[in-house]
Amino acid sequence: MPDPRFHHRFGTLSLGQLAKITGADLSDGSDPDRVVEDVAPLDQADKSSLSFFDNIRYKEQLLSTKAGACIVSPEMQDKAPQGMALLLTPHPYKAYALAAQAFYPQNMPDSSVSDGAFIDPGAQLGEGCVIEHGAVIGAEAEIGDRCWVEANAVIGGRVKLGNDCRVGTNATVTHCLAGDHVRVYPGCRIGQDGFGFAIAPEGYVKVPQLGRVIIGDNVEIGANTTIDRGSGPDTEIGSGTWIDNLVQIAHNVKIGKGCVIVSQVGISGSTVIEDYAVLAGQAGVAGHLRIGTGARIGAQAGVMRDVPAGEEQLGSPALPLRQSMRQFAALGRLVKKKK
Amino acid sequence: MPDPRFHHRFGTLSLGQLAKITGADLSDGSDPDRVVEDVAPLDQADKSSLSFFDNIRYKEQLLSTKAGACIVSPEMQDKAPQGMALLLTPHPYKAYALAAQAFYPQNMPDSSVSDGAFIDPGAQLGEGCVIEHGAVIGAEAEIGDRCWVEANAVIGGRVKLGNDCRVGTNATVTHCLAGDHVRVYPGCRIGQDGFGFAIAPEGYVKVPQLGRVIIGDNVEIGANTTIDRGSGPDTEIGSGTWIDNLVQIAHNVKIGKGCVIVSQVGISGSTVIEDYAVLAGQAGVAGHLRIGTGARIGAQAGVMRDVPAGEEQLGSPALPLRQSMRQFAALGRLVKKKK
Amino acid sequence: MPDPRFHHRFGTLSLGQLAKITGADLSDGSDPDRVVEDVAPLDQADKSSLSFFDNIRYKEQLLSTKAGACIVSPEMQDKAPQGMALLLTPHPYKAYALAAQAFYPQNMPDSSVSDGAFIDPGAQLGEGCVIEHGAVIGAEAEIGDRCWVEANAVIGGRVKLGNDCRVGTNATVTHCLAGDHVRVYPGCRIGQDGFGFAIAPEGYVKVPQLGRVIIGDNVEIGANTTIDRGSGPDTEIGSGTWIDNLVQIAHNVKIGKGCVIVSQVGISGSTVIEDYAVLAGQAGVAGHLRIGTGARIGAQAGVMRDVPAGEEQLGSPALPLRQSMRQFAALGRLVKKKK
Repeated sequence: MPDPRFHHRFGTLSLGQLAKITGADLSDGSDPDRVVEDVAPLDQADKSSLSFFDNIRYKEQLLSTKAGACIVSPEMQDKAPQGMALLLTPHPYKAYALAAQAFYPQNMPDSSVSDGAFIDPGAQLGEGCVIEHGAVIGAEAEIGDRCWVEANAVIGGRVKLGNDCRVGTNATVTHCLAGDHVRVYPGCRIGQDGFGFAIAPEGYVKVPQLGRVIIGDNVEIGANTTIDRGSGPDTEIGSGTWIDNLVQIAHNVKIGKGCVIVSQVGISGSTVIEDYAVLAGQAGVAGHLRIGTGARIGAQAGVMRDVPAGEEQLGSPALPLRQSMRQFAALGRLVKKKK
Repeated sequence: MPDPRFHHRFGTLSLGQLAKITGADLSDGSDPDRVVEDVAPLDQADKSSLSFFDNIRYKEQLLSTKAGACIVSPEMQDKAPQGMALLLTPHPYKAYALAAQAFYPQNMPDSSVSDGAFIDPGAQLGEGCVIEHGAVIGAEAEIGDRCWVEANAVIGGRVKLGNDCRVGTNATVTHCLAGDHVRVYPGCRIGQDGFGFAIAPEGYVKVPQLGRVIIGDNVEIGANTTIDRGSGPDTEIGSGTWIDNLVQIAHNVKIGKGCVIVSQVGISGSTVIEDYAVLAGQAGVAGHLRIGTGARIGAQAGVMRDVPAGEEQLGSPALPLRQSMRQFAALGRLVKKKK
Repeated sequence: MPDPRFHHRFGTLSLGQLAKITGADLSDGSDPDRVVEDVAPLDQADKSSLSFFDNIRYKEQLLSTKAGACIVSPEMQDKAPQGMALLLTPHPYKAYALAAQAFYPQNMPDSSVSDGAFIDPGAQLGEGCVIEHGAVIGAEAEIGDRCWVEANAVIGGRVKLGNDCRVGTNATVTHCLAGDHVRVYPGCRIGQDGFGFAIAPEGYVKVPQLGRVIIGDNVEIGANTTIDRGSGPDTEIGSGTWIDNLVQIAHNVKIGKGCVIVSQVGISGSTVIEDYAVLAGQAGVAGHLRIGTGARIGAQAGVMRDVPAGEEQLGSPALPLRQSMRQFAALGRLVKKKK
């Protein structure tokens, strides 16, 4: 059970309510009035809990679980123990996410502005905001309704945040226009000057970075991630994109909608990442490239050329999946032959 | 000599005192009452300094050093210049560490709570704490004795820290229970939500992250490192583990006792790192894996499979040391043959 | 046109003034009194803008640009549209940087010290400083003239900054002596203890880190980058060196003058990077190595040995450029043969 010190449970929900919340169908014979008290993984659930089954690797856990109810896909329902109440949906993990959100709603605190915050008199705050101790909001910033600026976060002058945004502890946001439901995690740095300089015999000459960072709606940006503002063009992050911790996004990068950028990825200047692309952990992408829609870049890959839409690449330098796997296999055979 | 502006020297110590502090034996003829004033590397030491010799690469430095006294292993004592006072121990570097700690004790400042800190009235502070300007401590947090919360650090509600913990400048700790003698370096982020979402056609759905971060005793966590809280299970860091700067530790990762995680390593979700494993710089480990006790993962390695206890692996994808070396050698021969 | 909310334009400049500012020559027939209102990339410029052409890849943009004036190299001037006013220089990008600086001077705010800052009574501030809300400056720190310490930044006791330094939001600087015109970006961590411990059967023993961080003049250090102080010797960053975001620099590293260290690079302890070396993104360098003057290390390279001056290396483990390219080609052929 989640530690109640950190995670406040809403109360109980009936199977009927949960079916509605998750968009799932109740299996035949499941009682819609049966009460569920919590969500839990298969191996920790008890009679009062709702669990979920989404990965065939955990089949044994499904067989032995004590969960009173379980979310499964219709094809898998015959794998569940006899008599268990089932919520049937083609997207069990999504349904679990919605159920967990219902049990543990991520409510923000009551609206308040700390005396220990500094808000420039020219800044505008929407309704219902929470501004914590040590937060700083600069001149003419426009903060939407129900925004939550956590302790010691800094929002620069003229930054614009939409509604329902949350800026984490000790984060910095400058030179940025963001949409609604944007979540900036602790220590994230958005909007600083990019790494732009001209090389000259007598030393590097700074190139003023005259762009912004434009962020769509429903974007998440992880802890200690850095996003530089554009040098003239803007740096852009599309709606629905999720960015993990410690990612580097350089000036003028354009990231499309619904992309997934995993931890410690680095994207060099002016590169375009089209919609729904996925970059796995520690991958790097050189500058001025285009990664096509839905492309998938493997962990630690080093991308030096454009990647066509939908293509999966691995390795450093990165190659299409099959080619990369063949090279790796050929190298293995080479060693065996030698022996 | 260390810059006295930054490093305060305690005073002088006799060779006899140093032998006791370091657990070393004085060599025959060394005067236990001889006074030592400082520690220094072999090439910078003078008559009044204690140095140490631990690496055969620096044999020339031992021969030419002006150090008045030196810590060496018994087998190496004949390599030291005639007449030099010697402290003999099988662990010279450890003995040096203890001697240096004695000369430069890392005392915390006198107990004080800054007027510019914000401490929730419901938080509990132990005795002898130092809470600096701009620090924020949330509701019902429990801070042990002699804890030091540096400027602009943020400790979330209900967090529990043991005794003698230190949280660095601008660091964040939430959803966390930590033991004694835990050191969190500046800018470190502990306890934020992990990267958890369900993929659905209409957009990603956030999975509430309902776990915590559990930290043992004597743990060090480097600057700007990020440790996400568990998604349901906890993220755990075992006692005596040292984590360097800019490391990423994802949700549900379990790290055992006495591990060493070097800078810029990334560990993906739900992976288990068993006791005394060592991960060198920039290594990456995929999710849901098990790295066995005492395993050693090389710098920049990319681990895609479980690693047996005690095994050393290199490369991306990572392979056992010998296999990796052979592949690299075979590739070298291939190029030569072609020429 | 840069967003005037974030980027304040100085006014107009004549071609004659711009020639002087940039050190370029006006082409024959260009009117020195012609007024220019802004800078812009070739594809966004209009009659009133000054643009630049520096990369043959953008030749089409030069042919079709609407820019009223353009900076080009003398050899390229015949590629510009007939009748366009030209500023001729062998360093067009540098000239553009200088022109952009003239149009968008990066002025600091008027001198002021926020009531919400904490400045130790024993600290010294030079003339014309800006100290923002939540900034903390420790005992006996010496801050030069015209320094700008942004919101929630922390400067430790006895730190010394030269003139015209800027320390970004939520950054930390301790145990450091820095020259003039040093820019520390948001969230950067300078001066914390390095990763130093002695391994002993009963647990790791901390080695006191008794050095400092010494920074030259005109150094830029990126967002969320970490630079540990020396363990006894100092960590040193030479004048004119530029360091990008999320870089790790370990204790005792010496970086020379005019180096370029790109994002997410990691440099292990006691390594020396000589003047003008370039390390591309995500490269890693092992400890106790020497990277020679002007050496160039490729993105994601893993350097395990000394690199001679001027040499370019790629790969992990890193090899000289030609050797690395050959290995990669040989591997490609191996796969083809097999098929």
